[in-house]
Amino acid sequence: MRILVLGGDGYLGWPTALHLSQRGHDVGVVDSLVRRSYDHEMGVDSLVPIRQLQRRVSTWKEVSGQTIQPFVGDLTNSAFVVDTLRSFEPDAVVHFAEQRSAPYSMIDREHAVYTQVNNVVGTLNLLYAISDLNPAIHLVKLGTMGEYGAPNIDIEEGFIEITHKGRTDVLPFPKQPNSFYHLSKVHDSHNIMFACRIWGLRSTDLNQGIVYGQQTPETSMHPDLATRFDYDGVFGTVLNRFVVQAAVGYPLTVYGKGGQTRAMLEIRDTLACVELACLNPPKAGEYRVFNQFTESFAVRQLAEWVQRVSPVDVTIESIPNPRSESEEHYYHAVTTKLPELGLKPHLLSDELVASLVSLALKHKSRVNFEAIRPTVNWRSTKSEVSVAGGSPGE
Amino acid sequence: MRILVLGGDGYLGWPTALHLSQRGHDVGVVDSLVRRSYDHEMGVDSLVPIRQLQRRVSTWKEVSGQTIQPFVGDLTNSAFVVDTLRSFEPDAVVHFAEQRSAPYSMIDREHAVYTQVNNVVGTLNLLYAISDLNPAIHLVKLGTMGEYGAPNIDIEEGFIEITHKGRTDVLPFPKQPNSFYHLSKVHDSHNIMFACRIWGLRSTDLNQGIVYGQQTPETSMHPDLATRFDYDGVFGTVLNRFVVQAAVGYPLTVYGKGGQTRAMLEIRDTLACVELACLNPPKAGEYRVFNQFTESFAVRQLAEWVQRVSPVDVTIESIPNPRSESEEHYYHAVTTKLPELGLKPHLLSDELVASLVSLALKHKSRVNFEAIRPTVNWRSTKSEVSVAGGSPGE
Repeated sequence: MRILVLGGDGYLGWPTALHLSQRGHDVGVVDSLVRRSYDHEMGVDSLVPIRQLQRRVSTWKEVSGQTIQPFVGDLTNSAFVVDTLRSFEPDAVVHFAEQRSAPYSMIDREHAVYTQVNNVVGTLNLLYAISDLNPAIHLVKLGTMGEYGAPNIDIEEGFIEITHKGRTDVLPFPKQPNSFYHLSKVHDSHNIMFACRIWGLRSTDLNQGIVYGQQTPETSMHPDLATRFDYDGVFGTVLNRFVVQAAVGYPLTVYGKGGQTRAMLEIRDTLACVELACLNPPKAGEYRVFNQFTESFAVRQLAEWVQRVSPVDVTIESIPNPRSESEEHYYHAVTTKLPELGLKPHLLSDELVASLVSLALKHKSRVNFEAIRPTVNWRSTKSEVSVAGGSPGE
Repeated sequence: MRILVLGGDGYLGWPTALHLSQRGHDVGVVDSLVRRSYDHEMGVDSLVPIRQLQRRVSTWKEVSGQTIQPFVGDLTNSAFVVDTLRSFEPDAVVHFAEQRSAPYSMIDREHAVYTQVNNVVGTLNLLYAISDLNPAIHLVKLGTMGEYGAPNIDIEEGFIEITHKGRTDVLPFPKQPNSFYHLSKVHDSHNIMFACRIWGLRSTDLNQGIVYGQQTPETSMHPDLATRFDYDGVFGTVLNRFVVQAAVGYPLTVYGKGGQTRAMLEIRDTLACVELACLNPPKAGEYRVFNQFTESFAVRQLAEWVQRVSPVDVTIESIPNPRSESEEHYYHAVTTKLPELGLKPHLLSDELVASLVSLALKHKSRVNFEAIRPTVNWRSTKSEVSVAGGSPGE
């Protein structure tokens, strides 16, 4: 099928595009390249060197014989969105193209507003373009498990049957997100659900857990095909960050007690989930939610795992939690729909952790120690992170 | 107390400002005056002539001896928001300053994006300004009963206790809004709830029903103090629109079967509810929701009521429903918190309907028949309404 990957230059968008191309789909990638600007703004960089999009695409052609068509532009530009969809004529659009860092969205007012406007307007433009051009296009949208927060009941996949005062209905699962970024995804989910209902669009909202790992069968085919690997306090996520800290002997920084539980999955499972969603589209007018993760871990448990497996001796340090969240809470989320479609998960193992640490060791000379600590504080409206005025999109 | 009314030049903002001023509060009004631009854009006008803000304020000074301080500017301008709060030093901010028409938000992509960006960014700027300057300021935010949609269970006030698989939690009530406007209010509610949790702000979200009526004790004191009265297909709401249609002998246009149920209240009750919320603030960090309505009616029932009371003979005509909604549905919403604080409602009566029809008769020469019919269609991404490119805020 014809699949357009939005945000196809990013951490997950690029390996997803390669995977879909390798699996025989006709793939296009769309990206504004703003993610690379965030690196310049923050003074950070991917641990693993990455090539520019044009080189990535040409190397992929050499290595695989497959063509990936690149489109450079911003989803907040509606004319660009319409032109791109009209030109590529996708069967499915996989939408990774949002500002995806919670700490980035919490830097200050400018970054909060930028994140919500960028994400919400990009998705609105996409919904209108699909409705105008071809409502049969399947929108596969990346949401996040963080949309749910940490309720004291089991988290279902998007909807929950509620019986109240003798009556029953199946309603959207209540959302308690914990950053302006996570909120932007909740706003998107509500907008998409509505567009499916009124215009008969079809969409799958993939509420994804935290992804770890960096190598996929396709990115491993050539160094030019590598995807980014973030370990800094703003864009680095929990397990990836720990393995880099271990590699350089930097104490593993656990926020608070570390009892926070996170739903997680390995990078190859992301690619498999996205393809499963594309191959099994919902019917016209249907908005469905898949919880996209394979395991849940407490943050401290992950730190201990990395400490145990790491060839470098490293300590675990509890630092004040910059986020506003419970450090001990009930957490149980359901994920049945993707396994039912055939997902075979790569579970976390000593071998996997060791391979990540060895990847980090290989690139340890590139580690910027100053970038590791969290600099964004949820409880203050002004964070310590040094930003030279405004944010890239404004 | 010192109360700043945002959107204080609008249908409800202006009479609210007068009421609070008359009740002895120190009142400021903030408005970008963009609501008057929407009239120019749509080629419509208030049934009742209204004065410019400067004249309104000076007449109020003459009539009552009270001063209302006006601030003209836009909430999407963060510097203006900060300067205004710093200058006025309010105890409470009453926030009416949003694009508030569902049909307007559904005209096309531009109006959907404008509505969501305008409303969400204005409220984000306000949250940051309050947190930066004085987190004790009570944000009284106008939401809408339309945030809930029409679930098949009773609608509670913002939160619902859910028991699921043997565990229980009190969670935000699931939202199923029916327009990009209503969605913008859902986005606001999620953002405000989060800001209260992380920064310790205090806020009351008033999920208001549809307001009818035009006269209040204060606006009746002088013709210069009149508030606007909309009857057009874009800004006119259900009962107000029917009485104008009756006055000019235009068939009462019921969308579809007319079984849609709406929560409603009289304009004087809006003013009383806002003051009750201000006088009884939540504690620091608390986000609370009041369902602000007094009665519920099916749309057809309202048409029949107006038909019966109107001195002008008028028919009821069912026209195709431009909205995407059920025309027969369960609807039962709870409202206990405002009555507990002392609200004494003005219920709909023959006398009230008759007084509205006579107001409409007095101004019937101003009625533009072309403006009455709905021109915005929810099911299409391009509506028939004639708009000369873009929307005012873009």
